[in-house]
Amino acid sequence: MRQIVECVANFSEGRRLDVVQKIVDAIHAVDQVKVLAYESDADHHRSVVTFAGEPSAMVDAAFAGIQVACQLINLDEHQGQHPRLGAADVVPFIPIQGVIMDDCVQIAHEVGRRVGDELSVPVYLYEHAATTPERRNLADVRRGGYEGLKQTILRPERKPDYGPTILPEAGACIIGARNALIAYNVYLTTDNVDIAKKIAHAVRYSSGGLRNVKALGLLVKGKAQVSTTLTDYTQTPLYRLIEIVRREAARYGVTIESSELIGLIPQDVLLETAAWYLQMDNYQPEKVLENRLQILDDD
Amino acid sequence: MRQIVECVANFSEGRRLDVVQKIVDAIHAVDQVKVLAYESDADHHRSVVTFAGEPSAMVDAAFAGIQVACQLINLDEHQGQHPRLGAADVVPFIPIQGVIMDDCVQIAHEVGRRVGDELSVPVYLYEHAATTPERRNLADVRRGGYEGLKQTILRPERKPDYGPTILPEAGACIIGARNALIAYNVYLTTDNVDIAKKIAHAVRYSSGGLRNVKALGLLVKGKAQVSTTLTDYTQTPLYRLIEIVRREAARYGVTIESSELIGLIPQDVLLETAAWYLQMDNYQPEKVLENRLQILDDD
Repeated sequence: MRQIVECVANFSEGRRLDVVQKIVDAIHAVDQVKVLAYESDADHHRSVVTFAGEPSAMVDAAFAGIQVACQLINLDEHQGQHPRLGAADVVPFIPIQGVIMDDCVQIAHEVGRRVGDELSVPVYLYEHAATTPERRNLADVRRGGYEGLKQTILRPERKPDYGPTILPEAGACIIGARNALIAYNVYLTTDNVDIAKKIAHAVRYSSGGLRNVKALGLLVKGKAQVSTTLTDYTQTPLYRLIEIVRREAARYGVTIESSELIGLIPQDVLLETAAWYLQMDNYQPEKVLENRLQILDDD
Repeated sequence: MRQIVECVANFSEGRRLDVVQKIVDAIHAVDQVKVLAYESDADHHRSVVTFAGEPSAMVDAAFAGIQVACQLINLDEHQGQHPRLGAADVVPFIPIQGVIMDDCVQIAHEVGRRVGDELSVPVYLYEHAATTPERRNLADVRRGGYEGLKQTILRPERKPDYGPTILPEAGACIIGARNALIAYNVYLTTDNVDIAKKIAHAVRYSSGGLRNVKALGLLVKGKAQVSTTLTDYTQTPLYRLIEIVRREAARYGVTIESSELIGLIPQDVLLETAAWYLQMDNYQPEKVLENRLQILDDD
């Protein structure tokens, strides 16, 4: 099976679109890597570039994008609502196909080493690539932002995993390995946003709900919406989240009108969802014609 | 997107496994074609070989398999329970990916022309490749079997689409284009086979149920089973069939215990099933990460 790693890189530039384009071009120029999407937000002053490809090519592509960002973005001149440590703020690698999390951890280390050594930019590794438990959580690593890190980088607990203990104008770079996120919105058959808020409260981890689930109740297009993020669908399946939303909604006399996926979804999530609803006990990926062809191709 | 055509070829040999192996080898020898599965049934004296690949390679592979079958199988010596017209009895082409039914109709004609001209074997085209409405239905084309065709081949309505009006010992070959079948069994939470029979009666086309659905009630492994075949899942979706089985079962106070897929299933069927149960109104194949990568590959 072909090996595919994804990267959803966040850069601290959302206004100078020529700079964003140069970052995208640098990533795009690497063979065996495809840019799947990129998006800039002027308010957050931030851009997200999603790309994917073979593991070794992904090391080169991520490094190329980080290099351009560090050359062209000066954090001393950067202001935005979103917390950030640096020009190439967060660079997570995600296993998609034919690779495991450990492979992505290794990629994070390789990119981190190159960014530290060749660009002299401090690197912090997070989530599955973290070197201490305190660095697993992105919010903890990013706390205080670029301005705070300037004051604290010499403290032992702030020592970078790679690179110098001197903060350049490009700031620091947070590199990691994590599972794919699923961003999923559920619309209810009501305009009563309180019901969406109660359901969000019921399903999210922080208030006693399902592990790996974040949720908010919002009013969108005149409808109550439960906006969810599933941070590890391999442990907490999407269908379970949706069925709990459905059951909680019934408690308030409403139901699911429709749902929408934001961004992309790994194929396995949908295949396993179908097998669950169909109660297909003998489901395995080899039962899917295209997967079987793929497996034969690799023989 | 890569073009993939599947062929599920039925040969009138289920006992001499060396002959079956020679047919499989001839198909397997063609570049860009993969043999996905093959199976022989001694009672039916019949084998099914499933293979898939690029359209032009599939013409060569199907012809190669038919040629070996026609050389090695003599219908005058063949006896079996299953109705058949010839050594290479039924050869349907099925659009899987990046091709439409018309492409498979064209492949059926190309293979038919070669079998008629180069092997001097009469060819009848069926289903979507049929040249008259009377030849659409396989059962109608095959009626009377090899022995009957010997008597009737000179009649105008029996004139082959390709090849001579003389029947060789290899008999005739029925070639066509059709949609993929889904063979799907549903186990109920009861051993009362009458309930399975009533549900089968309710869902199948022949007794007033869903179009494109065949169904039987059976007792399998001590459980009542509704055994179904979906002959056109593009028109009649699998989830609708399963949900009607579930509703009819509830009428008798039972429910679905589990289900099983026989053979392979095209990926789109499961992706659309997931989208339906999740009520994902904005589902499109491009939302699936792997599909998006595939599309980019083809740019």
